[in-house]
Amino acid sequence: MTAERILVTYRLHVPAADGLRRARLLAIEQSIEMPPEAVLEQRVLDDVVARVERVDAQPDGTSLAVVSLSAETVGDDAGQLMNMMFGNSSLQPDIEVVDLDVPAPLAAQFGGPNLGIEGLRRILGAHDRALTCTALKPIGSGIAHLAALCGSFARAGVDVIKDDHGWADQASAPFAQRVAACQRAIAQAGAATGRSALYAPSLYGTHSQMQRQIELARAHGVKIVLIAPMVCGVATLNALKREQPDMAFLAHPALGGNARIAPPALLGKLFRLFGADAVIFPNHGGRFTYPRAVCAAIAAHNRADWHGLRCALPTPAGGMSVERCAEIVAEYGRDTMLLIGGSLLIAREHLGERASAFVEAVRAAAAAVAA
Amino acid sequence: MTAERILVTYRLHVPAADGLRRARLLAIEQSIEMPPEAVLEQRVLDDVVARVERVDAQPDGTSLAVVSLSAETVGDDAGQLMNMMFGNSSLQPDIEVVDLDVPAPLAAQFGGPNLGIEGLRRILGAHDRALTCTALKPIGSGIAHLAALCGSFARAGVDVIKDDHGWADQASAPFAQRVAACQRAIAQAGAATGRSALYAPSLYGTHSQMQRQIELARAHGVKIVLIAPMVCGVATLNALKREQPDMAFLAHPALGGNARIAPPALLGKLFRLFGADAVIFPNHGGRFTYPRAVCAAIAAHNRADWHGLRCALPTPAGGMSVERCAEIVAEYGRDTMLLIGGSLLIAREHLGERASAFVEAVRAAAAAVAA
Repeated sequence: MTAERILVTYRLHVPAADGLRRARLLAIEQSIEMPPEAVLEQRVLDDVVARVERVDAQPDGTSLAVVSLSAETVGDDAGQLMNMMFGNSSLQPDIEVVDLDVPAPLAAQFGGPNLGIEGLRRILGAHDRALTCTALKPIGSGIAHLAALCGSFARAGVDVIKDDHGWADQASAPFAQRVAACQRAIAQAGAATGRSALYAPSLYGTHSQMQRQIELARAHGVKIVLIAPMVCGVATLNALKREQPDMAFLAHPALGGNARIAPPALLGKLFRLFGADAVIFPNHGGRFTYPRAVCAAIAAHNRADWHGLRCALPTPAGGMSVERCAEIVAEYGRDTMLLIGGSLLIAREHLGERASAFVEAVRAAAAAVAA
Repeated sequence: MTAERILVTYRLHVPAADGLRRARLLAIEQSIEMPPEAVLEQRVLDDVVARVERVDAQPDGTSLAVVSLSAETVGDDAGQLMNMMFGNSSLQPDIEVVDLDVPAPLAAQFGGPNLGIEGLRRILGAHDRALTCTALKPIGSGIAHLAALCGSFARAGVDVIKDDHGWADQASAPFAQRVAACQRAIAQAGAATGRSALYAPSLYGTHSQMQRQIELARAHGVKIVLIAPMVCGVATLNALKREQPDMAFLAHPALGGNARIAPPALLGKLFRLFGADAVIFPNHGGRFTYPRAVCAAIAAHNRADWHGLRCALPTPAGGMSVERCAEIVAEYGRDTMLLIGGSLLIAREHLGERASAFVEAVRAAAAAVAA
């Protein structure tokens, strides 16, 4: 029965004695949103109303409630899954989403990553080590500067060079010209070094706008794009990934919040489910405060066996340094991409050397893990 | 100088002595996202880096920081405003957005409501009283039931009859058939009573999907649609409202969170800025917990003079009853729409009478306010 339902685990910040009552109100809020006694159709009561499957008091005084939602209320719309999971309850201060699972047919409809870890490794020709990623900063720069950065990073051997997520269509570096120049810089570096690198331009606006951005980028040879699903809406990510089955999507956590939807559920599971091939998340020990266990859970969910979906590539980021590469690879393993931005750029005229040191540190770490 | 910048007020949950340092880190995070000493171009340091305009310690131990963002980083993209305002900082637990203002040219680009309060009154022919709104529930119902509800509500004199926000394209009542049947029921009721009512179907999916949904709805005579900007992305609302200058947009707060972006800023200002003609928000005293002052601030921002934008119609909702109508109209005044859903439906076979009582209570309240 529950096999055809979506299971969501919520944390209830209410006294344990009140847990079951609160969970029942939550189940109504996230489904029929009206008093059950006013429902006229038995089928709605039997199938459509969300059900409280269990409520367990926790040592910290909260309760965990597992509520099952009818998959028919979601259809195959990613936005609708967010809406039915947390739309109204997000407005209430005592509820958080901790975890979720979807039935296999729904997972198949969303489809997960187009390429996943294996596909990204294949187009990069990098099979036996963690991957490296950096960002083109700062916003406000001109195109010549960004293209030069691209070239330096690519010659140093960085795998994925992405736009900073603040890039859209700013006058200092409009999207069309920026993509042309940066992709050309990558290609020229590749011709010189014989190594592949990928440039990931940042998408902005709506689904229709992003469709045009991807077509433009594809015409220049772009194979991966940066997208912030919580800014543009998760349905937009999912629609694009279905329309563009050979394109890779690098998901940025912007506007993802801190905890109302637990990061392992949002970044670990939902972003992957909707089509992120790689998922950027704030690593512990940097300038963000996600605890180590939360980061580990995000990475674990990105790579777990889950309804046959391809694995997403966990991409820890946020105030990291070349000196931490060995530790990060030791912690997350080889199926990881390390994203370091500002800490490379601070080298200024020695940026190329610093980027090479980053690439070398990740290679050495992979060898150490293997040894 | 600040006239061309976006001003955002953040609450910093750090010791007062640490406020200025935290605000400076925040300003970097929300703009160049790299160490300023690594920036090569003076123009970027002068214009693009966000600036801390002031930091004030508060009696509650937090600090309020006003940070000005460069408008050039946003362009005219609504998603990009959310991103630059709170993209990365939303991932940090010690920052909340309290308030914002945008320069007049940016407000003009986003454009605000197409119709606003006056336009909605005009198409409804209701000029001297608060408006009434109800919802078609529960999801899972069939089309015949929903159309019958529509007819009952319209004959009772309810102004706006909206889909429950859980409606998408479910098999029990697919969008195309639902819109046709519900709009027909409204039109038939209107022909019988001589009064106008509006049916607001719920949009789902992406910008491209919503464009098709609006075209279909428009062909049936629909003049207002329901949209959840935090689910579909605010850029989608803004793009649709620019493309459809005679369509009204009723914004739903789903996935809007409880406080990381203060509801008066999000629902009061941003939703209006991006084009919501009416803004649904959880009223105090119902099943949501927004305090009375927060609700008052949402309504005040919806209707305040602001860069010449049309006023949005505050629409308190969430567990309200016919018995509270007088109190609600007394509190919010006539330029308000009251949304009552479940509390009408619970009347079951007496739904028409209950809906008439709702309409009459709002009329009587308006007369009392005028007296």
